[in-house]
Amino acid sequence: MRLSIFVAVFAAAACAGAPPASPLPRALPSLEAIDAGVATPRVAEVDAVLALQSAAAASPRAEEIVRSLTTEVGARIAGGPKDAAAIAWAKRTLENVGLKVHTEAVKVPHWERGDESVEIIGGGAQKLHAIGLGGTVGTGGKPIEGDVVEVPSLAALSALDAAKVRGKIVFVNAPMRRTRDGAGYAEGVGVRFEAPERAGEKGAVAAVIRSVGTDRAMPHTGSTRRKAKVPGVALSGESADALHDLLATQKHARIKLALGARWLLPADSANVVGDLIGRERPDEIVLMGAHLDSWDVGQGALDDGAGCAIVIEAARLIAAAGRPPKRTVRVVLFAAEEPGIAGGDAYAALHAPEVGKYVVAMEADSGTSKAYGVRFLGGPSADASWDALAARLAPLGIARLDSRASGGGDFQELVTRGVPVVDLRQDEALYFDVHHTENDTMDHIDPAGLRQVAAAYATAAWMLAETDADLGRAPVIKEK
Amino acid sequence: MRLSIFVAVFAAAACAGAPPASPLPRALPSLEAIDAGVATPRVAEVDAVLALQSAAAASPRAEEIVRSLTTEVGARIAGGPKDAAAIAWAKRTLENVGLKVHTEAVKVPHWERGDESVEIIGGGAQKLHAIGLGGTVGTGGKPIEGDVVEVPSLAALSALDAAKVRGKIVFVNAPMRRTRDGAGYAEGVGVRFEAPERAGEKGAVAAVIRSVGTDRAMPHTGSTRRKAKVPGVALSGESADALHDLLATQKHARIKLALGARWLLPADSANVVGDLIGRERPDEIVLMGAHLDSWDVGQGALDDGAGCAIVIEAARLIAAAGRPPKRTVRVVLFAAEEPGIAGGDAYAALHAPEVGKYVVAMEADSGTSKAYGVRFLGGPSADASWDALAARLAPLGIARLDSRASGGGDFQELVTRGVPVVDLRQDEALYFDVHHTENDTMDHIDPAGLRQVAAAYATAAWMLAETDADLGRAPVIKEK
Repeated sequence: MRLSIFVAVFAAAACAGAPPASPLPRALPSLEAIDAGVATPRVAEVDAVLALQSAAAASPRAEEIVRSLTTEVGARIAGGPKDAAAIAWAKRTLENVGLKVHTEAVKVPHWERGDESVEIIGGGAQKLHAIGLGGTVGTGGKPIEGDVVEVPSLAALSALDAAKVRGKIVFVNAPMRRTRDGAGYAEGVGVRFEAPERAGEKGAVAAVIRSVGTDRAMPHTGSTRRKAKVPGVALSGESADALHDLLATQKHARIKLALGARWLLPADSANVVGDLIGRERPDEIVLMGAHLDSWDVGQGALDDGAGCAIVIEAARLIAAAGRPPKRTVRVVLFAAEEPGIAGGDAYAALHAPEVGKYVVAMEADSGTSKAYGVRFLGGPSADASWDALAARLAPLGIARLDSRASGGGDFQELVTRGVPVVDLRQDEALYFDVHHTENDTMDHIDPAGLRQVAAAYATAAWMLAETDADLGRAPVIKEK
Repeated sequence: MRLSIFVAVFAAAACAGAPPASPLPRALPSLEAIDAGVATPRVAEVDAVLALQSAAAASPRAEEIVRSLTTEVGARIAGGPKDAAAIAWAKRTLENVGLKVHTEAVKVPHWERGDESVEIIGGGAQKLHAIGLGGTVGTGGKPIEGDVVEVPSLAALSALDAAKVRGKIVFVNAPMRRTRDGAGYAEGVGVRFEAPERAGEKGAVAAVIRSVGTDRAMPHTGSTRRKAKVPGVALSGESADALHDLLATQKHARIKLALGARWLLPADSANVVGDLIGRERPDEIVLMGAHLDSWDVGQGALDDGAGCAIVIEAARLIAAAGRPPKRTVRVVLFAAEEPGIAGGDAYAALHAPEVGKYVVAMEADSGTSKAYGVRFLGGPSADASWDALAARLAPLGIARLDSRASGGGDFQELVTRGVPVVDLRQDEALYFDVHHTENDTMDHIDPAGLRQVAAAYATAAWMLAETDADLGRAPVIKEK
């Protein structure tokens, strides 16, 4: 794939009478060259993109940024003890890469885990490797006990006679599929979000789910419906299998769980915004986002330290090229994505008046593996820009996908208001082994993946900020 | 391998004028046949062994026995709240399979884990997936903190300048090899046993080790030296890697740990003994052992519920054949192996006067995977018996190994007093994924493996109890 670009560069350069371009790495003469009239815009664009991609491939900065966040701050649940330290880190890091920084206050949900214990008691007694779902209610200072009713899905739970559930603990044992494109997570996450509420509606005293994750080792947290009727916890695959085995053979299992979880008053936090002001159209914004908060386990290295690092490094690469693009490249590190997109929604509300000036938005929130595909959503006028961008991403091994972009979690409000989005789709086959677990730590970073993804975001942001093209408005998608 | 036996049976039967034997399964006419003089002893032996092995292959009992122990009792640390329940289970289970049962009181070490927490604080803050080593001292009601000094081995710890260790927490990061024959465990277990004592000698405030296990997911407990100078904990491979990564990149890590562990007064427990009294030489004992206690995590399903089930099922198969062998087949379920072979040592001390009457001892304590080899240790007079036994184990896929048998943990005292031993070597490649972890649960049982191993113990015990041969005395092995 890479070869075709070099051939194109070579051919264009040869036509202009210049010597053949040497492949890698390339310096950055081309923007000045086009100003001086010695290169065509087409050659300048190709040269600039190659220079960004070469610089990204040689840069350890994305990895260093994740490392800095995980070691200097660590896990940083919204509203928790590290929230302010995370904001301070974001401000200085964005400033250090050459962006103009401000913060925007956000009130964020504030939930605290407290102590947790989950065990099988009586026949087959064992501790279970479990974690409370994010935002679960607690057990009120004392343990809850109940016999276990196992179902393989939410649908099966809905079909249960309430008389069989009353006073029991529902166990939803639905394994998640390992997929490259995250489809397994999309299928599975409903169990986590809904099980405690649905179980409570049937009269259960608690819900236990098999973790929405692809490993067998660790329990995975993640948000469940707020104010769900009963407490909810996730088991590791191992513990889910042990419980299933017990029920299959002994026909009976009883669980005791104690959760110290509690909801506190909303806390003060902030979105952190860094701008590389456009040289010609400063009010038009090419937006890259990631979320600064994490869950309270592990270090939030992949979720979403990696995304923060990717968009910061992409902006740094563009800033380091020496001349800002025409439009403003903005990085926003959002508050409180995990407990319900509080930062993203606040950002959309605050900036609603100028939403027409948002050219495109791109979120990074998929770990550190390489991007394999790109997809777009914009107006009809965007097609030529998408074509050009797809051609520049191809040498990174990123294919254009047929499906429409949907935008990241933090951009849902902007998308519904018509802001075009680009989705760089990273390989998520391994991501859900550590996602929302104690193992979301620095040693699971894929440094080569980080560099490639940063190169892709830099490419996309630079091209869409440097063009004068109107990308139109995203159509309103009616999800079935 | 199986074919040669059938050829031998056929040939012997043909010589005796009987019709050719049909292969499998076989009923058990042969013991009566030999009494009636219609079969040669050789044919009877082969027939009896084949019948035992066929019965074992068709029997779900070994699995049921582990299931019964794990579900009715569960984890059963020596001296702990389930110790008495485990003894009661052992008595009724041994009686149920037709053995004459008695108990022998043993004072056992009594250690309690209490609450535990281990975390990196400051730079790179994260909780570590850790477990206190069995028998560790606690931290005295308050947390201990220290900067971390990493070493790759005990030897490297010994080589450290004490000035560099004083006040620090030593981290011994030695990965364990995955091997079929348990060599990786033998190499690795010294770290667990010695690290807290050695670190304390150097002035460290605590020792942290990479778990002696082959998975990356779980922390593994297991005994450390009693009265070691400082607390010791084991990290999961994941957490060990995360700590190593932090130290490699940030050159600094600080750990806080709090262990509620404490030693209590020795507790009352018992070895549980079940006999199938020999029909001709009742005072001569063929001994099969396993340990009834477990650690306090998981269910003690593989360690050593499986071993208990194997030796009980082997005795049951022999008892069910209808006529006891010449010698007594004894099953002993030992107390308190994990915290230091208390039951095995007490048994050897109590029975020292009649040690000359112990024909052979065999322990089962290696999980549920199939046996691949057998090895022997006895006097020169035992060679013909070993040859005959090896020939009968071969059809089960069990090869004779060149190395000498060493006997299980509970039989070390008996071996030093000259009791011959047979080691049935099970495949341990997967065993140390769950050994001494919360995942040592029923769902990790290999039912086919259990049946094969029970068949092997039944074969060995029956043959050595039915023969009149003197197996001699085990030579005193001087370990270097």
